Amino acid sequence: MKKITILLAILMLNFSAFAQQALWGGANVESPVINADGTVTFRYRAPKAVKVQVTGDFLPTQKMVFEMNGNKMEYDAPGVADLKEGPGGVWEYTTPFVVAPEMYTYTFTVDGNSVIDNNNVFVNRDIASLTSVLLVPKAGERSDLYAIHRVPHGTVSKVWYPSKTAGFDRRLTVYTPAGYEENTKTKYPVLYVLHGIGGDEDAWVTQGRATQILDNLIARGEAKPMIVVFTNGNISQEAAPLENSMDYTRPTMQLPQTMEGTFETSFPEVVKFIDSHYRTIAKKDSRAICGLSMGGFHTLYNTINYPDLFGWSGMFSAAIGVSDTSISPIYQDFDKKLATYFSKKPKLLWIGCGSTDFLIQANRDFMKKLDENKYPYTFMETDGGHIWRNWRIYLSEFVPLIFK
Amino acid sequence: MKKITILLAILMLNFSAFAQQALWGGANVESPVINADGTVTFRYRAPKAVKVQVTGDFLPTQKMVFEMNGNKMEYDAPGVADLKEGPGGVWEYTTPFVVAPEMYTYTFTVDGNSVIDNNNVFVNRDIASLTSVLLVPKAGERSDLYAIHRVPHGTVSKVWYPSKTAGFDRRLTVYTPAGYEENTKTKYPVLYVLHGIGGDEDAWVTQGRATQILDNLIARGEAKPMIVVFTNGNISQEAAPLENSMDYTRPTMQLPQTMEGTFETSFPEVVKFIDSHYRTIAKKDSRAICGLSMGGFHTLYNTINYPDLFGWSGMFSAAIGVSDTSISPIYQDFDKKLATYFSKKPKLLWIGCGSTDFLIQANRDFMKKLDENKYPYTFMETDGGHIWRNWRIYLSEFVPLIFK
Repeated sequence: MKKITILLAILMLNFSAFAQQALWGGANVESPVINADGTVTFRYRAPKAVKVQVTGDFLPTQKMVFEMNGNKMEYDAPGVADLKEGPGGVWEYTTPFVVAPEMYTYTFTVDGNSVIDNNNVFVNRDIASLTSVLLVPKAGERSDLYAIHRVPHGTVSKVWYPSKTAGFDRRLTVYTPAGYEENTKTKYPVLYVLHGIGGDEDAWVTQGRATQILDNLIARGEAKPMIVVFTNGNISQEAAPLENSMDYTRPTMQLPQTMEGTFETSFPEVVKFIDSHYRTIAKKDSRAICGLSMGGFHTLYNTINYPDLFGWSGMFSAAIGVSDTSISPIYQDFDKKLATYFSKKPKLLWIGCGSTDFLIQANRDFMKKLDENKYPYTFMETDGGHIWRNWRIYLSEFVPLIFK
Repeated sequence: MKKITILLAILMLNFSAFAQQALWGGANVESPVINADGTVTFRYRAPKAVKVQVTGDFLPTQKMVFEMNGNKMEYDAPGVADLKEGPGGVWEYTTPFVVAPEMYTYTFTVDGNSVIDNNNVFVNRDIASLTSVLLVPKAGERSDLYAIHRVPHGTVSKVWYPSKTAGFDRRLTVYTPAGYEENTKTKYPVLYVLHGIGGDEDAWVTQGRATQILDNLIARGEAKPMIVVFTNGNISQEAAPLENSMDYTRPTMQLPQTMEGTFETSFPEVVKFIDSHYRTIAKKDSRAICGLSMGGFHTLYNTINYPDLFGWSGMFSAAIGVSDTSISPIYQDFDKKLATYFSKKPKLLWIGCGSTDFLIQANRDFMKKLDENKYPYTFMETDGGHIWRNWRIYLSEFVPLIFK
């Protein structure tokens, strides 16, 4: 066995010289660790650093003020805590509180420089930034939906569809529920799920944990088996970074602009592609749409511009109240389109927003309009602001309601 | 428009407070940049740092010595270069040479602490470490195969199959070529691609750029349209990190041990699943297998233990020469199995190894045995050692040869 042990050692060493530290002594730092008492310890090795901090949404938020063109807006930023230096230059911080079951993101700041946790392989990309992930699951709590369990798993595919609007093929993420491949006669309803600004077709399955939420809700019998399509709302972009033919030579990512009506104009071509490539129930009442932030805005305009397409709509922290009618016909005749949509008796318009979200007032104004016209809708208000925690909650609430 | 600009600003700000630096002033550092003259500039902002270095495989390798149990082995490690501090605490290094078209990985070392490039969203996970990616594509060069082009793209799916051996469902990555969904009568040959130690079902599609290689070779007409299955060779593991039910509470990753015969014993259940769930040509001459390092070792034993299963086999820097026959029947009766395999006239046994790979001698010993028995094979020797650059080359060479 000795010969094999040495071979394994040298194999691992050669497989990636970068892996040496993690494998062969070196720092040997474990971070993060969920302790038995429910607190969490974060560690970072930086022997020469003067100051190390952790910034994350597991800490109480701090109020920040954003100023632009003379306009001031208050917003919630993740909290910050200091790590303390210990033996071997390993800095450490243990929360003085039990960290509630949830999925969190965090980064370290080492002498003013933001870095991810280099002992944690769970990394999310969010717009142009990387963050480390801390998942605290607990049976019986909502965060349990975000964990992987030994239940039947759906298939998650990266699929390219031809976009006439864009003039090139574009990428979708498509979830087909467990059993889709075996039950070759069964047709399924379809939910379209839209990301926020800066996101792409990967966002909901990474930060949103949508695959796990769907697997778990379907396995529990709390949601119908359904096909779920995650679009890329940046119409000028083929796909997420590294899958995009345009941006690999300049990987400092630029944000694509996209609240200009083109994505909504192109949406029927996505629906057409899905209905022709998957075993869908191609009917309004078996088709749903939802989205977060900019995706909530896209959801609203897809819903009212195509009143025969979606029976169920979910607006999560929707970025509404600012559409400029001069940009696109998609944003014109709002009240008239809204009246037509409700005259066709949609199954559900669901609205979710955080009580400290900077968009709560815009959503309240929209609901006031709905109330004045006696248009039916469902509203869920949660704690907190414009954050992924809320969007995972809204998806978990919306999915069990649809296709019933 | 002003109102919208402000909304977009605050939206992006709120979408991720972590994204502030990248979006709103702050460092505003662009890295890496491929310059017009073919050199590459790396930058990292660290105003308080004393020393910043870049470690990467675009630099000349350095010889290192590894010692364990009194055994010494020399190996190639990626080169290191110093960055120089400039205005605003932005450290910078420009290669004094043209960086050859290739795909590279690199990290920065800030005062002894390894970090990825926080201005580069292209990140690969390799075993327990993260590295930043630099892709230098060039038309007409091999690295062009690794870039995304506007050609028809295959679908890449994460699929779970029931493993009787493991006792739970396990994840595969499955590539179906462009047209698979439309040409519903067409059956396809299948290539199984195996990762090395520390890897998983994600490795070949991230570091290996296998999806791009296949899309591009098929689009050029240089390879047959084929289904490609990327297995997870760590039989005790369900799936890659974050998709594995066991490891999210302790994300400092542990390496699963796996050269013990169990994975090879279980391999026919993977083939059975694929043949029953995809439109395959379920015949030996339409079935190929290849793998790198440990995956080359697995490839060899799958090939000779199942002489009626694979018509085409590719061993890339295969970790051979150390199998302990006491571990598993899979490793017993080697010469006899080899004779049986060759008596059935396989289409191709392809071997690739780097001239400075620490496994070159083991591969030469194996080929000596093949020569002595007049067993036919094809050998490709390349520069360099046990590195991803070679494995991408071997895949690009092997794929056009099979199913012809």
